[in-house]
Amino acid sequence: MMAPMLPRATKGDATRTAIVGAALELAAGVGLEAVSLGVLATTLGLSKSGLFAHFGSKEALQLAVMDEAVERFAERVVAPALRQPRGEPRVRALFEHQLEWIEHSGFGSGCFFSALANEYDDQPGPVRDRVVQQQAEWRGVIARAVSLAVREGHFRKAVDPAQFAFEFVGLTQAYMQSHQLLRDPRGRALAGRAFDRLVADARRG
Amino acid sequence: MMAPMLPRATKGDATRTAIVGAALELAAGVGLEAVSLGVLATTLGLSKSGLFAHFGSKEALQLAVMDEAVERFAERVVAPALRQPRGEPRVRALFEHQLEWIEHSGFGSGCFFSALANEYDDQPGPVRDRVVQQQAEWRGVIARAVSLAVREGHFRKAVDPAQFAFEFVGLTQAYMQSHQLLRDPRGRALAGRAFDRLVADARRG
Repeated sequence: MMAPMLPRATKGDATRTAIVGAALELAAGVGLEAVSLGVLATTLGLSKSGLFAHFGSKEALQLAVMDEAVERFAERVVAPALRQPRGEPRVRALFEHQLEWIEHSGFGSGCFFSALANEYDDQPGPVRDRVVQQQAEWRGVIARAVSLAVREGHFRKAVDPAQFAFEFVGLTQAYMQSHQLLRDPRGRALAGRAFDRLVADARRG
Repeated sequence: MMAPMLPRATKGDATRTAIVGAALELAAGVGLEAVSLGVLATTLGLSKSGLFAHFGSKEALQLAVMDEAVERFAERVVAPALRQPRGEPRVRALFEHQLEWIEHSGFGSGCFFSALANEYDDQPGPVRDRVVQQQAEWRGVIARAVSLAVREGHFRKAVDPAQFAFEFVGLTQAYMQSHQLLRDPRGRALAGRAFDRLVADARRG
């Protein structure tokens, strides 16, 4: 009889997912480094030993939170763009969905990953490594979409995908500052015009 | 006899400056919110009451730290650019000195203000207000240099200084991520090429 095993594992998974979700909300507010098994246990009204059984260490918990955030970003930003046709439409969709993510990711405000980048840029270790990996992969996603736009003939052959990704990331960072810090209502328009210029330059024959 | 007053005030000022400098170093490492009179007293081996006499509150200390950082930025980034001729040379100098500031501001690593922007974007209060003011002023400095470049005939009349400043800030943010987080040796080249493109577009007739 395998059946009893399955529901038990599923229940454990559901609990773990709920815990990671709560930890993500917490991290979005106070930073990931402040999320420990003890703090999380207090916040959730669970026993620290119970959380320890799920994660084993603060670091494992932090990496699980990071993985959950990466998954949500993939679902909310990357996946919808991949449903767009290859070429400029997909590149545009990545930008548009990234701005929406900055506006309302569903947890915390601003971009969780940018906050982590600031939090961990000087703290060596597995969490920093995962943050670096996420940012490098995100630039890779943009660069691949740009390569496809070149292959489709939408962008010039001379366009350097890494260069485009660098500028794309810069615009989203400037938008985040306009939106989140300066609360500047012109932010969207500035970001849109800057992106149009970037794309127009990539098209130019 | 006014003389005894002056040395006493000067000594007090020097002590205050030294304390603020130490607090700035501390804030660059652990964030400004973690810098309290108590923490600073422990770090410096001073009495908390002595620090209280200088600053009166944690918030006043934090604002003093912020002012010191703003002053250093003005001296290291803005002033050298103002010594360049009006127009494109001054705009370029602002960019160049901002990249150098990111590489070695002399305290902490990365850009202190970007770290603060992330730390305070969700925390209302006088410190956040000062962070917003600093970032808005910095965009204003860039925009004024761009306006002068238009007036000098280096840039087109249609160039929007606020738009240029938005993109300028984005490039420095992307550079900071490349340099500080990704440790990507291509960061400088990517930033340089992106900035050349931004300037070339502003020039284009």
